[in-house]
Amino acid sequence: MIRVVILGAGNVATHLSNAFLNTNKVDIIQLYSRKKSSLKHIDNQINTTTNLNDLKTADVYIIAITDDEIALFSSKLPLKNSLVVHTSGSLAMNKLHDKFRKGVFYPLQTFSKNKKIDFKSIPICIEAKNNDDLILLEKLASIISKNVYQINSKQRESLHVAAVFVNNFVNHLYHIGNKICMNHNVPFEILEPLIQETASKVLYLPPYEAQTGPAKRKDEKTIKNHLLLLTNNQQKIYTILTQSISTTYGEKL
Amino acid sequence: MIRVVILGAGNVATHLSNAFLNTNKVDIIQLYSRKKSSLKHIDNQINTTTNLNDLKTADVYIIAITDDEIALFSSKLPLKNSLVVHTSGSLAMNKLHDKFRKGVFYPLQTFSKNKKIDFKSIPICIEAKNNDDLILLEKLASIISKNVYQINSKQRESLHVAAVFVNNFVNHLYHIGNKICMNHNVPFEILEPLIQETASKVLYLPPYEAQTGPAKRKDEKTIKNHLLLLTNNQQKIYTILTQSISTTYGEKL
Repeated sequence: MIRVVILGAGNVATHLSNAFLNTNKVDIIQLYSRKKSSLKHIDNQINTTTNLNDLKTADVYIIAITDDEIALFSSKLPLKNSLVVHTSGSLAMNKLHDKFRKGVFYPLQTFSKNKKIDFKSIPICIEAKNNDDLILLEKLASIISKNVYQINSKQRESLHVAAVFVNNFVNHLYHIGNKICMNHNVPFEILEPLIQETASKVLYLPPYEAQTGPAKRKDEKTIKNHLLLLTNNQQKIYTILTQSISTTYGEKL
Repeated sequence: MIRVVILGAGNVATHLSNAFLNTNKVDIIQLYSRKKSSLKHIDNQINTTTNLNDLKTADVYIIAITDDEIALFSSKLPLKNSLVVHTSGSLAMNKLHDKFRKGVFYPLQTFSKNKKIDFKSIPICIEAKNNDDLILLEKLASIISKNVYQINSKQRESLHVAAVFVNNFVNHLYHIGNKICMNHNVPFEILEPLIQETASKVLYLPPYEAQTGPAKRKDEKTIKNHLLLLTNNQQKIYTILTQSISTTYGEKL
């Protein structure tokens, strides 16, 4: 059994705890949250605390709190020589306090509190300062996921910005598509199969090859007609992405 | 049996023919293509021609060729009073020649020649000038799809621009994510589960509510760090989308 203490009670902490609970190879020794109210929904077979001085002994301490607070929070932990990891995509490992053996345990997925997720398919990016800890993290990650990657802090940073493009920005484009539909009295659901197919294409075709549409064809007439239907802000986004596609596939529009 | 003639041999024509062939309620009377070579891969149970003067009698003639050529092509068809429809998302119905009964039969999906698609889930947007024709198109569409929508030319135009956002532009963001990964020596496959989850979230949550990330949180530190990792062109896209998200969720960044 790998003994784990989870520090935090947000989306990542909750999903991680549930994933560990569903195995019989991880013992969640304790769950810490600053606020008592955040611990209410926690499975009552788990020991919880709101006091850092009550932390129990474990093999791994997993900090799953807001990125901005991790560095300071880690300095307050009354632990020495323990393996302490964070779960952030954008924070370098060395931002953790120097009194620990440091590591990273970053599940790369978008978590919503109310949606169950099959953890097995979620990639977990691990990093550790020393090799024994890396082996332990690999073992821990492999218990809940079939996709475990050793990724250093620099690689993780670029992975995180790439994730912003394919998740945050993509979702915003869905939102704009939704707005255009609403403004013109068309049900957005008509676009749902297209959205699913666009995403599933990536699984077997590099996106460079999957590209279609007026920007790639340099179909100026359609582009001009499209712009007439858009708000100022939508026009700006349409234009910059059209230019970028056009440049990607040969000379400028 | 509804008798259909398909004019064209590209992706849409091929996928439509296959969908009709898989039912026993549609008779593909004939398939026309300008070039003999395009007809080589056609199932040999279908009659084919490269000569418009040889067109046979049918209930519906479906033009599935490049948008730009539809208007002129339709004027050359030696037909009168027949029901002639096009399959374009962006072309108004009235661009078809006035000598016919006009209509539109627009399957909203991204087609690749080599990938099989389950037509049942593809939305088909239909439009017709007179009501009997609309009923016939609805019948025809319902044979191959469970999602049939009556959409007029104006609505269809806005649907098409929305599709550019959720398909063409989204795919380009996948491409940028892929490039960032390649530039920093990270396997793009790590992002695939995130891409799938982002798309599947739309099915049960409006994209406005699904939004996460530094732009929504107005997390300026992370945004600044991200920009340092990007090329000039990527920075422009990052900045404009970040501003757009930020504006969508309250005051400017």
